[in-house]
Amino acid sequence: MITLFPELFPGPLGASVLGRGLNDGLWSLRASQLRDFAHDKHRTVDDTPSGGGAGMVLKPDILASAIDTIAPPDDRRARILMSPRGTPLTQAKARALAQGPGIVIVCGRFEGVDQRVIEARNLEEISIGDYVLAGGETAAMVLLEAIVRLIPGVLGAPESHADESFENGLLEYPQYTRPQNFEGAEIPEILTSGDHGKIAKWRRQQSEKITRDRRPDLLE
Amino acid sequence: MITLFPELFPGPLGASVLGRGLNDGLWSLRASQLRDFAHDKHRTVDDTPSGGGAGMVLKPDILASAIDTIAPPDDRRARILMSPRGTPLTQAKARALAQGPGIVIVCGRFEGVDQRVIEARNLEEISIGDYVLAGGETAAMVLLEAIVRLIPGVLGAPESHADESFENGLLEYPQYTRPQNFEGAEIPEILTSGDHGKIAKWRRQQSEKITRDRRPDLLE
Repeated sequence: MITLFPELFPGPLGASVLGRGLNDGLWSLRASQLRDFAHDKHRTVDDTPSGGGAGMVLKPDILASAIDTIAPPDDRRARILMSPRGTPLTQAKARALAQGPGIVIVCGRFEGVDQRVIEARNLEEISIGDYVLAGGETAAMVLLEAIVRLIPGVLGAPESHADESFENGLLEYPQYTRPQNFEGAEIPEILTSGDHGKIAKWRRQQSEKITRDRRPDLLE
Repeated sequence: MITLFPELFPGPLGASVLGRGLNDGLWSLRASQLRDFAHDKHRTVDDTPSGGGAGMVLKPDILASAIDTIAPPDDRRARILMSPRGTPLTQAKARALAQGPGIVIVCGRFEGVDQRVIEARNLEEISIGDYVLAGGETAAMVLLEAIVRLIPGVLGAPESHADESFENGLLEYPQYTRPQNFEGAEIPEILTSGDHGKIAKWRRQQSEKITRDRRPDLLE
């Protein structure tokens, strides 16, 4: 992680099963302070946008120094820039990155990052969704969380992935648990029937229906 | 926020301009521990899924108690459940929520939330993207960050929103800053021309080109 806020990590990634995996060494994270690569005593990392406009832009030279130190040219890890202009993150992309040698994430801030360093260091721009954040840190946490939970051993049972939303191209079926009666509403009878074939079929139908109703774009 | 990990908040929302806005009272956040609403001494909040399967499901009765305490029926705030099955978050949705009376966010964990409480308490399911996370906390941070930065006064200049990705239906144009020459690459000449009309036109063309190349779906 290359960020102006290394103290925010691991943050939510340090909780629960992801945090246990971190403590157990199933995955690891290092957050580097971009300002450590600045050249002046004010540790300047940004400057005004060429051509005018609001906000500040991360300087290409400082970011290039950070990248070259943390991920030299022979480093096989993907170099990712969190950016609303990037390719939308998908479950398939998270799975591909989970199987790779690791990643280096640049967290933007301010108005953006100088285009020349994006090109010169071949940064892959990834977006977590069609909205704008204050910086790349929260987006990086989302990307890491999506990846890390797929690393073998981090979640308990490997089969718990198979039925999840997006893994089979569908949204997940509705879930129920005790009590049997909640404010007059019963658990659907089929789920307590013990007939595993019928349950699997019902869940599949529910997944298809909810995907058709809510996200017909996923079925195209 | 209703969560099993209240200690994760404000987390990244406490940094930088969002954190200043929080300290200055421009927005506020309260994270409530779902376990405080459990009925037994083990503070149980989940149970196995009806019909079998991996993971655990949040119990409807406990979550209903939490919601009824934190957001009674006359509470005008939107009740949101972070869920990969939800409506995808957009910049327009973030803007609408930023102009509203506030929100109550339920963070799921485990395999999901009992469907009956989602319906009985009219939870609006929102997804931050087509991927699966370990829980709703990081997703809630993303939703809040997208909303809070739009609250007047949190970011400095209101005009800094106008050119952002998605605000005009387009991805943002490339940004540049000093040095003038970075590893042999110059800042595009037009940006240093001082001709604001030409700069605005160039930026618009760049936005249209990058959107057409990367996200033709946004132009439809």
